[in-house]
Amino acid sequence: MVSKRAPKSVIRRLPVYLRILDHLIINNVEIISSKELSEETGFSAEQIRKDLAFFGAFGTRGSGYNTDYLRKKILKIIGLDGQTNITVIGAGHLGTALIRYYAQKNPYVNVVAAFDVDSSIVGQKIFDIEIVDISNIKDIVNKYDIKVAVMTVPAEHAQPVAEKVVESGISVIFNFAPVKLRLADNIHVHNVDLSIELQSLIYYANTNR
Amino acid sequence: MVSKRAPKSVIRRLPVYLRILDHLIINNVEIISSKELSEETGFSAEQIRKDLAFFGAFGTRGSGYNTDYLRKKILKIIGLDGQTNITVIGAGHLGTALIRYYAQKNPYVNVVAAFDVDSSIVGQKIFDIEIVDISNIKDIVNKYDIKVAVMTVPAEHAQPVAEKVVESGISVIFNFAPVKLRLADNIHVHNVDLSIELQSLIYYANTNR
Repeated sequence: MVSKRAPKSVIRRLPVYLRILDHLIINNVEIISSKELSEETGFSAEQIRKDLAFFGAFGTRGSGYNTDYLRKKILKIIGLDGQTNITVIGAGHLGTALIRYYAQKNPYVNVVAAFDVDSSIVGQKIFDIEIVDISNIKDIVNKYDIKVAVMTVPAEHAQPVAEKVVESGISVIFNFAPVKLRLADNIHVHNVDLSIELQSLIYYANTNR
Repeated sequence: MVSKRAPKSVIRRLPVYLRILDHLIINNVEIISSKELSEETGFSAEQIRKDLAFFGAFGTRGSGYNTDYLRKKILKIIGLDGQTNITVIGAGHLGTALIRYYAQKNPYVNVVAAFDVDSSIVGQKIFDIEIVDISNIKDIVNKYDIKVAVMTVPAEHAQPVAEKVVESGISVIFNFAPVKLRLADNIHVHNVDLSIELQSLIYYANTNR
């Protein structure tokens, strides 16, 4: 690719724009200025103009962005113009909740399978999504061309499971396990640690600061 | 308070240090250098020294930090030296998973109640945590001195529910609803949007970038 690599921070803001554009389009808003987008997102108007200019200039100076055109452009940039097959690894409470959440609420992804090691839940279904023994991951990932793994496994199993996930051909991991995964540089890992997020909030709860 | 207000980014890193210190202490490591902490966290050694110096100089130049002392200091700074009472608002799939997660895995918090509007689940219990009708929130928050609300309500209800939460006396909200809450400046809101996080990952999944 010749184009400049987009910074992570820009990529993380694109779906925020997308959600607002979806909402505007439903409400028949055809044009929006970067200033109005700024009010909706909390990002500065300058930041928004920069973000969008990164992928080509979509706005018309002095008038704004065409909501439908911008939405389609962003869908294409992110790769949401088609459905992406994902999997959830670890079908405990959090994993099960995430399977239901992503299966119901996200038009852009398809949860095609879940994996676990617990023989008491392997074979069960959540909606029509089967929980498969993790030993079969390579076959299933190949069969369905699964691109993203959402990992909700206990901390002590996260590293070896992540290695299995990578071996199976997946290069993008959304990791909920409270562990810094050590994987090859070409593997994209995004961590959300629900314990740490909550703990840092307690700082604000305990004193008036 | 006379001390300089700590930046959010510093506060968010403190629980990461805490987890590593817990692990080190279990393994009988008494002293750790900022360089070693850097390897464990991925933050630079300079960043770590700065973060910790923010609350007073805890390290000894050339030797490092005493793990037990540093752990206790950080617990105190965050306010994790006692338990904090929290609640989960919205006891759907994600809410239920979070109740179980925080009740089981976090020694620093106490999930004392959950709230919902759905009369078919109000009165039920998750472990020993009762799901209470949201109309009773003020009484329960007062009774248990609840400090933090974890909100997992549908997007369209998030703003009015957040206002109720604030009225009840809670000033810290961990919001999973895909909505930018508009609340008074003294209310601390931290958003995690699981759809947006996943969507931005799809960018990395769809092409080799």
